[in-house]
Parts: sequence; C-alpha cells; structure tokens
Amino acid sequence: MIFTHDTPAQRVLFGHGRAGEHLADEVTRLGATRVMVIATHPHPDVIGTIPVALHHDDVAPHVPVDVADRARQAARHHDIDLLVCIGGGSTTGLAKAVALTSGIPIVAVPTTYAGSEATDVWGLTEAGRKTTGVDRRVLPTTVVYDSALTVGLPVELSVASGLNALAHCVDSLWGPRADPINASTAAAGIRALNAGLPAVVEDATDRAGRDEMLLGAYLSAVAFASAGSGLHHKICHVLGGAYDLPHAQTHAVILPHVLAFNAPAAPDAARTIAAAFGTDSAEDGLARLRKRVDAPTALSPYGFDVSMIPDAVARILPVVPESNPRPVTESDLTTILTAACTGDAPMTHPQEGRR
Amino acid sequence: MIFTHDTPAQRVLFGHGRAGEHLADEVTRLGATRVMVIATHPHPDVIGTIPVALHHDDVAPHVPVDVADRARQAARHHDIDLLVCIGGGSTTGLAKAVALTSGIPIVAVPTTYAGSEATDVWGLTEAGRKTTGVDRRVLPTTVVYDSALTVGLPVELSVASGLNALAHCVDSLWGPRADPINASTAAAGIRALNAGLPAVVEDATDRAGRDEMLLGAYLSAVAFASAGSGLHHKICHVLGGAYDLPHAQTHAVILPHVLAFNAPAAPDAARTIAAAFGTDSAEDGLARLRKRVDAPTALSPYGFDVSMIPDAVARILPVVPESNPRPVTESDLTTILTAACTGDAPMTHPQEGRR
Repeated sequence: MIFTHDTPAQRVLFGHGRAGEHLADEVTRLGATRVMVIATHPHPDVIGTIPVALHHDDVAPHVPVDVADRARQAARHHDIDLLVCIGGGSTTGLAKAVALTSGIPIVAVPTTYAGSEATDVWGLTEAGRKTTGVDRRVLPTTVVYDSALTVGLPVELSVASGLNALAHCVDSLWGPRADPINASTAAAGIRALNAGLPAVVEDATDRAGRDEMLLGAYLSAVAFASAGSGLHHKICHVLGGAYDLPHAQTHAVILPHVLAFNAPAAPDAARTIAAAFGTDSAEDGLARLRKRVDAPTALSPYGFDVSMIPDAVARILPVVPESNPRPVTESDLTTILTAACTGDAPMTHPQEGRR
Repeated sequence: MIFTHDTPAQRVLFGHGRAGEHLADEVTRLGATRVMVIATHPHPDVIGTIPVALHHDDVAPHVPVDVADRARQAARHHDIDLLVCIGGGSTTGLAKAVALTSGIPIVAVPTTYAGSEATDVWGLTEAGRKTTGVDRRVLPTTVVYDSALTVGLPVELSVASGLNALAHCVDSLWGPRADPINASTAAAGIRALNAGLPAVVEDATDRAGRDEMLLGAYLSAVAFASAGSGLHHKICHVLGGAYDLPHAQTHAVILPHVLAFNAPAAPDAARTIAAAFGTDSAEDGLARLRKRVDAPTALSPYGFDVSMIPDAVARILPVVPESNPRPVTESDLTTILTAACTGDAPMTHPQEGRR
C-alpha cells in the first residue's frame, strides 16, 4: 500500500428542486456580482435571483477552440466574476475553458451524468483534434445537484450516460493512480448507480432513482479524476476520436469487455466491484445491471465496422496504460473489439495476473 | 437526499517505511526552509534530510493553553515556515494550536489511530476546561502515513485506538451533517478497520494489518470531520471530561451500546454498517470484531462507578444531538450507562425510528 492521494477542495449542494435556492446561496457566499450563465436552455427557476451580467448559449460539443475564444472574450468584455454553467459535459467544458485562461471560479449545475463538474480535466478541440489537460483552476468551486433538472433526460440517454459514469468507477480501480481511497469512492459510485439506473428505467421521473444517479455520477467523477484513465477509457477515447462514435454509448458497450478481460488479473478490483453490485462476481453484477436497463450491446449500429478493427487496434496498443493489471496484446484487443462490434457476450480471459 | 458537503483539500502520502522520503518530498514541494518539528521522541529516520530549525518536545495531553503559548512563541522566535508533527493526537493538537494563530502550514506524521491529522478540529484546555473549535487553517496540508512508525504501539492501545477510529465511522452515520458522501467514507473506514484490527491483534508487527488500520483511521477522521459528532461522541466527551476516563477506552466500551440503541431507528445506517462488516446485522458485526480483538467491555475498571450515573445522565441529556435518529430519554441513557459501567451486553431497544 504505497500511494499519493490528492483531495481537491470542492463544495456540493444537493437537493431535488433546490437548484435556485442553492445557487443563490452560493453566489452570495462567493460575493459574485457579475455572473456569466452558460446554458443552451433558459433556466428561469434556477437563475431567477442571481445577478446575471450575461447569458451565453454559444455552446458546442468537445469545446471547439473558436467557441472557447468567443466565450473568453465575452467574459472579459462583461467583466465577469463568476461562471455558472447549467447543462451537460459540453456546457461544463466551455465554462472550464474560460476558467482555464481567466481563473474565474465556476459554479456548475449539471443536468446529465457526465461528471465533468467534479474533475479538474479540461478539453479543447482544434481542427478535429482534441487536447485535454489537467488544471486545478477548472475544477468548479461548487456543484449544485438538483435531480429535478434531470427528469427530462430521455431514458435511453440516461442509461448511456449512467453507464458512462459506471465506467468511470470501474476503470478507476486499475487507473494509474488507483489507491484505496479512490477505490472506496468508486465502490460507492457503483452502489449508487446500480440502485438508480434500474429505478429510472422503470420510471424516468423517479425522484429517488434520479438522486442516486446524480450522486453516483459525482462519486464516479471524483474517483476517476483521482485515479486517472485506465484501459477502458483509452479504448473509448480512440474509438470516439477516430470513428466519431457517440461518447456515452461507446462506454456502455465497451465496459463489459474490458471488465471481463481485466477482472481475472485484478482480484482486489473484482472483489470491490462484486461487493458493490452485491453479486458473487464483478462480471455477473455488471451483466445483471445491463440486462435490467436494456443497455446497448454493439458498436455496429453506431457506424463501427469489423473492417475498422485492425486500424483501431493499432491506435489503441500504444496508449495502453502501464498500470493495467495484465499485458494487452494485439490479439486481446482484436478479441475485445470484435465482440464489442457485433454485440457478442464478453469473452472470458482467464490468466495469471500481474497484481 | 438534501445536503451540503464540503470537501477540504488535503494530500496523503502513504507507504510503509517511506516517511523520511515522503516528508522530504513534501518539504521541498512546499518550499519550506525553517521547519519546527513537534515530537516527544526523536525520529532521525523521518526528519533526517529536512531543514529543521527547531525541535520542540514540550507536548502535553489535551493541549494546555500554556503549552500552546510556549510553542507559539517558539515558532515566532525561530521564524518557522512549516510545522511537522510526529506523534499521536496530543502532538498533532499542539501543531494545530500553533497553526490556528499563525497560519503556518502543517505536515502531520501520525503514529496512532487518533485521526486528528485529517480534521479541521482544534482543542485547547485551560483550567481543566476543554475548548474545541473548527478552523480550516488547522487542517494539515499533507499527511504522511507510515505504518512502520506504528508497529511499536502496544496491542492493547492499538485496539482501543482502532475502536476509537471505528466509533468515528459509526457515529458519523447519524451525525448532524451525515450525507451519502461521508457515509461511503465511513463504510470504507469500517471495512479497513475490520480487516486491520484482528490482523494486528494476531501479530502486532503485521504490516498489511497496520496499513489497513492507518487507512481506516484516516477514512474515519475524514467521515467524522465531515458529518460531525453524533450521540456516541457526546456521551464520551461528557464521560471523559467529567470523570477523567481514558479517551480511546471509553469510546471502545460505549460504542456497542449506542449502536444497539440507534440501529433499530436508523435502518440505512445499520445496513451500511452491516454491509461494511460483511454481517447480517450491524450489532453482530461490531460484536464479532470486538470479540476477535478482546475489546474492553466495562467502564468500571477505569474508575466509573454506578453511583456516578445520575450525574452523567444529567450532563449528557442537554447535549444529545438533534440529528439523533431517535429521541433519547433519561431512562435510555441510564440503561446505556449502566450496561457500559458493568460490562453487560448491550440492551436491545426496539422502537419505531424517526428516520
């Protein structure tokens, strides 16, 4: 047990239907007088009483550099002293782009399970190439979670986004900075998502289920930001970037295959996952949850074809994390991607582990 | 699910036999050049290479005000820019007293399971009266955990100190600021202590067991600082202050009685505790662990007598936390203290809960 664990400071205000009240409290506490609200939809109930100097709805996926530049100029021009972002990963990402160069604090109000609000990771896209980085200035000072803002998220998207959050938890268990502290956070995230996802699939307006999903998304992001990207995220990053596959769905499809590959070589992680699912094995726990929520099982409907596999394998091999609990060969990746492409059940990969 | 959760920033460096190396790294990272080492024992292997301006060994339990004043003057006089405390709760407490008035950062190197290193709570004693408070300045910037420094802690003291840490976890589940985030930290603490305590009792030099206990002590303190004092700590605080009972042992004896009282009225907390112990009920899990480590069962050997119970009950009643999951009557407290005094098994207290 040898590790370095950095816990960043952050405040979380959580409550169904409380976003307006909680946001107003935070704006007062932070002494902000000129707020830039970044959101693609109006949210009169949320921002009703805060001193808004600028509404900014010029948001695009993956934060293109020109979109970031326009937001940065707008913040300067309006002498902004607080960024409030209300939305999913793209909206939070734009607030982070402004914070990165200006140091203006962020209060994030997430409406999906992307988790960006609880990490210090930023991303920018220029000429189709995504650059990511880590900077403490982009970590929101405060997150306001209000599950009333998520009840409108369609079930299918909720499932994909929730399984994306679940992937943060699982992959963090063998991330490069995995330690017992972020492992316990990841386990708590799995528990919350395993409770919330089926409840939301059964009833998209289920308040307790939506609460559990938001809590799970937060915990998943905290664990992931702390432990770093494991094999699963490296695979998904390549697939998303090279073949323009949808983010959350790609994660949902790939996860069981990476779990089946790594679990036999990572018994501690497998036990942690199984215990969090309340099942005998990690793979069974994930399979059971995926079945209950009718999770996507194949990449082919999203435009990924078996003919692309050799190219994908060649792109993934060089970025396999050193921390992975077992070595990853060309053949291993081909097996994983073939099953993920066609929707076959995950292969079992029994093998002596390295840890 | 409505809560406000504040996570303070802190760095943890963890590694058996690594304290010297980790401490030197931190001193360099923080740019410190004049370190005040607060410790009652010399630790040449730990402080070997750091720029020590002053060794301070004038430490006393509960941080008497005159002891704090001398340490503060010494820090000023020697132009100290970093406090390094190596020891248990009293040593960490003295560093906090200096930080409270000076703002000098602390790197804590704990040698017991007191947990003070992971909280922003300070305490000072004047004329036999203890004042406590909360201030972010006293939270150590960094904690260096090295289980090699704890192998000399006698088994009996390790058990009492470890059960004191366990009490932080359990009591935080019904603390005034209990929330799902600090509950997951508390559960992880219970898991670690439940693994570590029996291993250390079997072999006081067991490295994995000592690692688990330090990890558990850290998690317990993080959960407790976040959730705040519950009924258990209010009872122990009164008993310790009024009758001079030993801190850790008092916690060890009282905990099963408070758990038996609260568990039926706090089913969520009880489930969390049971799952962390891996048992069917919270009470069984604690009883099983206590049996394995031969935990102290009665307060009478420490000088608490049944004749003192009415006075103790009168002192405790006014400080019962409003957050307690069930009301607490004079008769309830008499039952709890009588059993704790004589070492009887905890009474069952079936009752409809308030939450």
